[in-house]
Amino acid sequence: MMSGIHAKWLNKVKWDEHGLVPVIAQEAKSNDVLMFAWMNRDALARTVELGEAVYWSRSRKKLWHKGEESGHIQKVIEIRLDCDEDVVLLKVEQVDSIACHTGRHSCFFQKFEGNAADGEWQVVDPVLKDPESVYK
Amino acid sequence: MMSGIHAKWLNKVKWDEHGLVPVIAQEAKSNDVLMFAWMNRDALARTVELGEAVYWSRSRKKLWHKGEESGHIQKVIEIRLDCDEDVVLLKVEQVDSIACHTGRHSCFFQKFEGNAADGEWQVVDPVLKDPESVYK
Repeated sequence: MMSGIHAKWLNKVKWDEHGLVPVIAQEAKSNDVLMFAWMNRDALARTVELGEAVYWSRSRKKLWHKGEESGHIQKVIEIRLDCDEDVVLLKVEQVDSIACHTGRHSCFFQKFEGNAADGEWQVVDPVLKDPESVYK
Repeated sequence: MMSGIHAKWLNKVKWDEHGLVPVIAQEAKSNDVLMFAWMNRDALARTVELGEAVYWSRSRKKLWHKGEESGHIQKVIEIRLDCDEDVVLLKVEQVDSIACHTGRHSCFFQKFEGNAADGEWQVVDPVLKDPESVYK
């Protein structure tokens, strides 16, 4: 099952001092940026094997198959690596179109308003599904 | 000029142990993800003041006004913060539509092809401008 973990293509990724790489998840059909997370070598291998996003949870220190609790799985459409080979871009099909644990489409729902001296972050995107009903 | 650096809205951002926050730059008109970089408090304040992306260069350990050498400035259209308040999304107008130092539109020009056991990263996007002519 974990046959991919020693694969050569994983060596091209420049893992940081914690063995991690930043990952941007983007919705393939809309190009919306959904969320940002981290992967270790194991997580990226699993992501390719499963065809679904598997991240490394830095807080829980374990693999996190996105949607395992909420059902909001991310089906992988395409995987990209940047010019420095230290950032991954995942183009996904987002189940229910909800990526955020708050029940919103995207995690980036706070928008800066104002100027440098006097600004604020305003919530501008709606909750699509009550998180209470998502995480039982 | 640096009046914004003590502003309250900057306190909402959860800076990491190095005082940095990951930043995703996305082209506003196409929604394409252009690049990934880091900002410190100073860089984010300057970005808002200037209306142009100013990052923190971790390698050069100094502020980096994107495009200062290449001319490939990023005009800021919108700034978003994620649910955990530790990642910034910058929606920009990319001058010349070239964000990457390789002369490509996006830094994410390498696409994964294959499977977990036997995959490779293939360059799939064209060079729009010879980097030799960009960096004199």
